[in-house]
Amino acid sequence: MQIFLYDTTLRDGTQREGLSLSLADKLKIARELDRFGMHYIEGGWPGSNPKDAAFFAEAAKMEWKHAKIAAFGSTRRANSKPETDANLKALLDANTPVVTLVGKSWTLHVTEVLETTLEENLAMIRDSVALMKAHGKEVIYDAEHFFDGYRADNDYALATIKAAAEAGADWIVLCDTNGGSLPDWISAVVQRVKGKINTQLGIHTHNDSELAVANSLAAIVGGCRQVQGTINGYGERCGNANLISIIPNLQLKMGMFCVLPDQLQRLTELSRTVSEIANLNPDEHAAYVGNSAFAHKGGIHVAAVAKVEHSYQHIEPVQVGNRKRVVISELSGRGNIKMRAEELGVESTGLERGVLERVKLLESKGFQFEAAEGSFELLVRRAAADYEAPFKLLDVVTIVEQRRGVEMQAEATVKLQIGDEIYHTAASGNGPVNALDQAMRKALLSRYPELAEVHLVDYKVRILDSESATGATTRVLIEAAMGDERWTTVGCSENIIEASWQALVDSLELPLVRARSNQPMLLKHAATVAA
Amino acid sequence: MQIFLYDTTLRDGTQREGLSLSLADKLKIARELDRFGMHYIEGGWPGSNPKDAAFFAEAAKMEWKHAKIAAFGSTRRANSKPETDANLKALLDANTPVVTLVGKSWTLHVTEVLETTLEENLAMIRDSVALMKAHGKEVIYDAEHFFDGYRADNDYALATIKAAAEAGADWIVLCDTNGGSLPDWISAVVQRVKGKINTQLGIHTHNDSELAVANSLAAIVGGCRQVQGTINGYGERCGNANLISIIPNLQLKMGMFCVLPDQLQRLTELSRTVSEIANLNPDEHAAYVGNSAFAHKGGIHVAAVAKVEHSYQHIEPVQVGNRKRVVISELSGRGNIKMRAEELGVESTGLERGVLERVKLLESKGFQFEAAEGSFELLVRRAAADYEAPFKLLDVVTIVEQRRGVEMQAEATVKLQIGDEIYHTAASGNGPVNALDQAMRKALLSRYPELAEVHLVDYKVRILDSESATGATTRVLIEAAMGDERWTTVGCSENIIEASWQALVDSLELPLVRARSNQPMLLKHAATVAA
Repeated sequence: MQIFLYDTTLRDGTQREGLSLSLADKLKIARELDRFGMHYIEGGWPGSNPKDAAFFAEAAKMEWKHAKIAAFGSTRRANSKPETDANLKALLDANTPVVTLVGKSWTLHVTEVLETTLEENLAMIRDSVALMKAHGKEVIYDAEHFFDGYRADNDYALATIKAAAEAGADWIVLCDTNGGSLPDWISAVVQRVKGKINTQLGIHTHNDSELAVANSLAAIVGGCRQVQGTINGYGERCGNANLISIIPNLQLKMGMFCVLPDQLQRLTELSRTVSEIANLNPDEHAAYVGNSAFAHKGGIHVAAVAKVEHSYQHIEPVQVGNRKRVVISELSGRGNIKMRAEELGVESTGLERGVLERVKLLESKGFQFEAAEGSFELLVRRAAADYEAPFKLLDVVTIVEQRRGVEMQAEATVKLQIGDEIYHTAASGNGPVNALDQAMRKALLSRYPELAEVHLVDYKVRILDSESATGATTRVLIEAAMGDERWTTVGCSENIIEASWQALVDSLELPLVRARSNQPMLLKHAATVAA
Repeated sequence: MQIFLYDTTLRDGTQREGLSLSLADKLKIARELDRFGMHYIEGGWPGSNPKDAAFFAEAAKMEWKHAKIAAFGSTRRANSKPETDANLKALLDANTPVVTLVGKSWTLHVTEVLETTLEENLAMIRDSVALMKAHGKEVIYDAEHFFDGYRADNDYALATIKAAAEAGADWIVLCDTNGGSLPDWISAVVQRVKGKINTQLGIHTHNDSELAVANSLAAIVGGCRQVQGTINGYGERCGNANLISIIPNLQLKMGMFCVLPDQLQRLTELSRTVSEIANLNPDEHAAYVGNSAFAHKGGIHVAAVAKVEHSYQHIEPVQVGNRKRVVISELSGRGNIKMRAEELGVESTGLERGVLERVKLLESKGFQFEAAEGSFELLVRRAAADYEAPFKLLDVVTIVEQRRGVEMQAEATVKLQIGDEIYHTAASGNGPVNALDQAMRKALLSRYPELAEVHLVDYKVRILDSESATGATTRVLIEAAMGDERWTTVGCSENIIEASWQALVDSLELPLVRARSNQPMLLKHAATVAA
């Protein structure tokens, strides 16, 4: 059974607090969605803002491989003519093959919010759909608050979608706008509607009860053939239905057809690319695509997965472009170390025992390598008898001071040795760690100009035994990047400066070592990037 | 219908990558769970690590208002006697009223992972449950991989839980361990099991398909009376079922009874407190409890909500202790400040406007007063015209250095004024913040000997815009205590030392000010400490 995917990341998704997309961002995301195989891409609400209108102007010039572009807008205003309605005109001007019209299903909204009559609302729906059909559009009618409206007055809710159907709508999409419905209600309503309407049905849900995915599936079981949602579930309040979870559930578990298997293998990439463009941290724990989604930690699990892949995995990660990951921790055995080193492309024959001892020792002090593959890789490399460090640290000093009411200042000095030469540098920064970073770079750049390309992109601090208060152990994680490549390093100490320093040194040492051995940098999401 | 809540945040929850809890953290969370009204609290796996064993030793000494404490462990090893099994012995030593035993339901796991016979697995289940019953325990039997096992061989899966039931288990909990099942399957299996077993049933799901909440609800509709999950859905891979969403769904929408209405009103607080203790950023978009869960952005929504509250809200936010929020930083208003100051026992008449401006300014810079009542109280007090600071800061310097291979050293100097006198002190510490704390105390103690009673008990660091890496803004929270009294203060800066310094100064200034005005110290969680 074919299910049609309708993505509204660019419209409903951008209602999420903290998410805003430039025109260029929107076009980039649209191209990714098309490449993935999305059937409909809702680009925006042309009547509501100029950025969305500009999107449609650009989109009209582009070639789309799989997707039809849809423009979104509401039915005409009360007591006006459709031909002169500014919003409907903007929709036509968007010049898209598909127009999605939203209208009211809930009597409360008609009489109390719109402040019009129930009859006029039906006319608004009828007129608006008919106008779009007269212009040759494929019309998707979004029935806002349908499930709440049906509960309040099922005759009237049905009358609204019948009006849309009779005016020629190609799809009727039932919306759980407030996100409050439960799957059983969704499924019951869809089945009742199905008996009364011949038009194809779709479903649009929100995650206010943490049930948006389940509600979408329930509607499809009930007979809907289109599912609306967003990438990563972005959207207002608690978000929209997450297409990233819905698609593999439909395709791998329910026998529905959405995209080709090789398109599905780009799911992880799609999720992460969109979060990159939106400048939001990817959810490491996201179903199917999270970095932790197929991570195995406990020794028992790891041993079991090594014996029988599917013993602790609900699908094969490669089906969605993700990968199994063995988490390195004090619970690991030598087998884990070997497997992990091989994943990293580092030869470790014979070194496993020493590396494992070192991991155990460091983890007992508070280090944690599960999130710090960069430091783990260095640990493996440093264990080799012929390892030569690209630089040797001699001294490091940081001073933070605030005197006579002048703003607090931070400064650092670093002394290090490269070959026979000593480099002694000083720098200031907006904090002591930033000052250290600057001083290190001053010292290293003349010999290693490639470090100019390395940027620190993330800095995290965690207090381990916070009850020891200011004497507590601190763990620092630093993520660095060069082009598309990323690596994370770790430091741990009672002294927050020392912990930061350790992670900082690793983050700069690793790219130098890898460059020397002519190996590509460790890719944080290697599988994805390769695909 | 009563549904029993079983929380496993302290055991399964800590399997989440990046989450680790100290013993003190675990005890704090357990107290919060008990206070909320959780029926069962699983404290850990005493056979697996000493920290969990220590938790049970502490828990046994405490009084629990609502909850029964449960210890978790697996059935006995193959081909051994239950009486001499180390894991079962550790479970008995945990001295809890409830023991949760996990055993295998899936033939694949029995023969390929455990590498034993199907018959021996049944004996392992029977023996282990019987031993615990002989010791008077309430026994909860967790049937691992039940839904996958049932699909593979329903007779055998049923035989495993019948073995547990016949041996006297009080509960049989069906687990979707790999998180791959769909709600229809969950519901079908529960109903079939219900026809074959008289023991009460429970449900335990994981979120690998983004369906853990829906699967839990489906099981309860099917007849389960216990639901296992974690706060905020923490757990391995994609997490466990999120009790924070399940509870209001059951209680507000399905007519089930879990906790009292006033306990439910603490749901938001519970979610946020646990994320604070775990030092994880709260999910702003979480269903029910997220900061954005009832945030209205678009002008239409805002206007509609102003007209009819429930037009765009699926529940009343106050039912779960959350609140409606109109986005565009409409930060409450003066009324709130007044209310808040009164709650703190601080007179603030006439100061609200100035305090509000200051709160807004500081929050825009990254400060947050929600979790830092101590700093908020000082802010209100400092706004008074006659406020006299107990000390005046002049200079502060910290130096961290590592020279010629000697271990890194931290030292601080502080110059401050009390009355007409200048105090200039120096101290070392195991990190710069600890050195600052020591130097401050040296300067203050001669004039304020009561500060010897003040201890810093918690220190937390959060990076706000971690993408700016080492130049990112840092927020520091310090919790201080004197006897039973606790207060939390906040600092925020791009310079981690400065942020720590601000919080440190507040933490020492507040007790001096309160002592002067003869008022009792603010209690952070008055109810908890009293309990």
